[in-house]
Amino acid sequence: MKVLISRKTGIYYYYMEEGDYHCKEGLIKEEDLKSGNSVIFSNIGREFLVFNARDYDYSTKFKVGPQLITKKDLGYILARSGINKKSVVVEAGSGSGVATCFFAGIVDKVRSFEVRDDHIKVAQGNLDMMKLTNVVLENADINEQIEKEEKESIDLLFLDMPDCHTVLEKNLYALKSGAFIVCYVPSISQIQEITKVISQLESLYLEEISEVILRHWRVWEKVARPNHRKEIDHTAFLVFIRKI
Amino acid sequence: MKVLISRKTGIYYYYMEEGDYHCKEGLIKEEDLKSGNSVIFSNIGREFLVFNARDYDYSTKFKVGPQLITKKDLGYILARSGINKKSVVVEAGSGSGVATCFFAGIVDKVRSFEVRDDHIKVAQGNLDMMKLTNVVLENADINEQIEKEEKESIDLLFLDMPDCHTVLEKNLYALKSGAFIVCYVPSISQIQEITKVISQLESLYLEEISEVILRHWRVWEKVARPNHRKEIDHTAFLVFIRKI
Amino acid sequence: MKVLISRKTGIYYYYMEEGDYHCKEGLIKEEDLKSGNSVIFSNIGREFLVFNARDYDYSTKFKVGPQLITKKDLGYILARSGINKKSVVVEAGSGSGVATCFFAGIVDKVRSFEVRDDHIKVAQGNLDMMKLTNVVLENADINEQIEKEEKESIDLLFLDMPDCHTVLEKNLYALKSGAFIVCYVPSISQIQEITKVISQLESLYLEEISEVILRHWRVWEKVARPNHRKEIDHTAFLVFIRKI
Amino acid sequence: MKVLISRKTGIYYYYMEEGDYHCKEGLIKEEDLKSGNSVIFSNIGREFLVFNARDYDYSTKFKVGPQLITKKDLGYILARSGINKKSVVVEAGSGSGVATCFFAGIVDKVRSFEVRDDHIKVAQGNLDMMKLTNVVLENADINEQIEKEEKESIDLLFLDMPDCHTVLEKNLYALKSGAFIVCYVPSISQIQEITKVISQLESLYLEEISEVILRHWRVWEKVARPNHRKEIDHTAFLVFIRKI
Repeated sequence: MKVLISRKTGIYYYYMEEGDYHCKEGLIKEEDLKSGNSVIFSNIGREFLVFNARDYDYSTKFKVGPQLITKKDLGYILARSGINKKSVVVEAGSGSGVATCFFAGIVDKVRSFEVRDDHIKVAQGNLDMMKLTNVVLENADINEQIEKEEKESIDLLFLDMPDCHTVLEKNLYALKSGAFIVCYVPSISQIQEITKVISQLESLYLEEISEVILRHWRVWEKVARPNHRKEIDHTAFLVFIRKI
Repeated sequence: MKVLISRKTGIYYYYMEEGDYHCKEGLIKEEDLKSGNSVIFSNIGREFLVFNARDYDYSTKFKVGPQLITKKDLGYILARSGINKKSVVVEAGSGSGVATCFFAGIVDKVRSFEVRDDHIKVAQGNLDMMKLTNVVLENADINEQIEKEEKESIDLLFLDMPDCHTVLEKNLYALKSGAFIVCYVPSISQIQEITKVISQLESLYLEEISEVILRHWRVWEKVARPNHRKEIDHTAFLVFIRKI
Repeated sequence: MKVLISRKTGIYYYYMEEGDYHCKEGLIKEEDLKSGNSVIFSNIGREFLVFNARDYDYSTKFKVGPQLITKKDLGYILARSGINKKSVVVEAGSGSGVATCFFAGIVDKVRSFEVRDDHIKVAQGNLDMMKLTNVVLENADINEQIEKEEKESIDLLFLDMPDCHTVLEKNLYALKSGAFIVCYVPSISQIQEITKVISQLESLYLEEISEVILRHWRVWEKVARPNHRKEIDHTAFLVFIRKI
Repeated sequence: MKVLISRKTGIYYYYMEEGDYHCKEGLIKEEDLKSGNSVIFSNIGREFLVFNARDYDYSTKFKVGPQLITKKDLGYILARSGINKKSVVVEAGSGSGVATCFFAGIVDKVRSFEVRDDHIKVAQGNLDMMKLTNVVLENADINEQIEKEEKESIDLLFLDMPDCHTVLEKNLYALKSGAFIVCYVPSISQIQEITKVISQLESLYLEEISEVILRHWRVWEKVARPNHRKEIDHTAFLVFIRKI
């Protein structure tokens, strides 16, 4: 896949490497697209930058549902929990597989549980597009599965699901000592349910509750200001818990 | 290494796995530390949670200089640039090696350039502690080295250095088509220098200028409020540039 | 004027106190509107809360241009500069008169300069609606007028105009000793121009550069989260300068 | 009172207009302080800017308790509720009188209720310093007093007290139709109590829950960045309620 950026409009186009490309800014010939030139023109004279698509660009093509976990949150979850290429991650639910794909590109193995059939299909489609093969996607409820996982095998348990506090009440011996559980919760009342459960357990320690805010800036010539069109957005609160 | 958290004070202690442990909250016997119990007591009756140290815990022990790149920024840089375990990262400067260690735990190879001898030593010490062997640390100026790198070999060029705009003016054919350059800059005037350089180049495209803000929350019983003691902190602006 | 809030849609309607009221949620009879009941119904059964319009409600009816100074900024300007009902405020430009009306409702006298005819008309219309009579609105350039003001007569000089740094270079003996000048500037490059001018003057002292951010929250039953529909918005930076 | 700012350290000093002034940056002679010069020197050669204290400067000298309502919040409360020099404000508790002084400088009359003797004394001291005479300060519980206020006499009811939701359950006929009640609450759980009460009342309408965040910026020469020393701080959430 190649990415084309129109110099005039700033719009991104994605070329699938076959034939001429038609878009609302004109027709671009296959020979130009495959010329290796980094600047090419459409038949109506529009200028395009061309470069090879990276994993980041593929990720923007994911099929996703209405609630999308964002890169700002995924990045911080990974960095804050110290996950790396040797890690084993278990998650629930799979949702559209956005977090699944992100973790799978980085860690050793991912096991992802999801109760909804339709989500499983979307998630599998996105995993296939990214050619990720280190993921086991299961149509099952993590509440029934987590106690079946191998003892001390999990480095990160990532929970992006309603009522995730019920999972915390299970026997979590499948998590390594010191491993992280990260809950991704849209509202403070859910945090309150989580903290209530944890306060009654000696096997879990609440380490951090935080929120990642991304602010876009626009700078050109001598002007610098926050970008009005892409303003700060709340997505969810992150709860970092340690397995004792 | 084991982590001990005092139930009373919330202080974290790090036990190096030899002998009894003395701290200001009393003496903890080696046999208790090695008992496998997750809750143990000091001789003055303080209660401690005990668990195995994770990579995250080691990273909190890094020797660092005054300006420390944070996990919120590292996480977003990784997620936004789509870097994964197959990626090759080049960075400058190494600084204390905090970013170096983070990338090395995740990607295939890291090459890190640093002009200061003292920084090289600190960075190497931190890499050794994390047992990371996929990093080449070079005492050299990236301005002189970047054009010597192999053609189209780099997935991410990470610049955390003064005057990083000079690097952008070099011939960057060592970067893959579509690869990311991320500049980590504390002030807006540096962004202005970067945008000035990019506006004169057809080989680079400025994709995003952003700032990651982390807000800590405190929730207990029915109370939820932002945490006064760990407030929102500006670290730096992030500039995401694409190689065309 | 009366305010009607639809219980179903949350939409605000404004009734001008004459005849029946027609809106997309039905017809409401004059006798109901004037009944003094705080809950009334339209002919299609929609429930409305009714109360008398306050100055706040009138201010939401202002005719305004595209760039509107917000209440969060006006409030902080007033509170931070210690302006009260004894104060004299001079401002430029008048714009749509939003700041003018705000200050005039609170302080003793306002003098407002504006170079554009069309703005003067809009501002005067808004002042008339609010029945404010302590304002002198002048179609003139403050750069030419500020030195004609009476000596030590001004408590606050508020500048919401392009190139406001030129005003700072004038002889500002019309400001009281210790009086505030507040510049309302959308971009950081304008702050840079202002700081450059001030650094060359002994008669001005830069006390604070800040930005007021308003975050809306949504709380119902047990759910609390930031409001997605009304997110944090950058409007402008505020520069607080003291006259020495 | 005169304000002195040291050019070297940026420290503010307050001169009470009698005799020479001694500070850690040297001795400044009365004749220099009263010369009318805006730049004077201490006996050790330190340079000071001198200007007359404004109400703002006096307000920085308030005696206050640990929890201080800030200017960013006071300003927004005033601007958002449309209060002006004709308004009548009732508040509870008085606390240190910071909000009391702020409102009293602007509105027609303030009535302030406070249950604690010690707070009353501090508040009265601050009111005296500001020479404000349009305030009635009462050592009483607003829960018992609010129903005794004159019918439709109040434009703003400001509640900065624990359990302020109990006041909302009282008969609030002393508020004008459309008048604002503003609750200043540090935690989200208190908002939940407020919303629960309001959901059961037809006489109150919840219009906005928001949080004002102030971000300080540092700009010099070509450098612009958020100010690390004075970072963003949470104070409280603001709840804006309309009397129907």
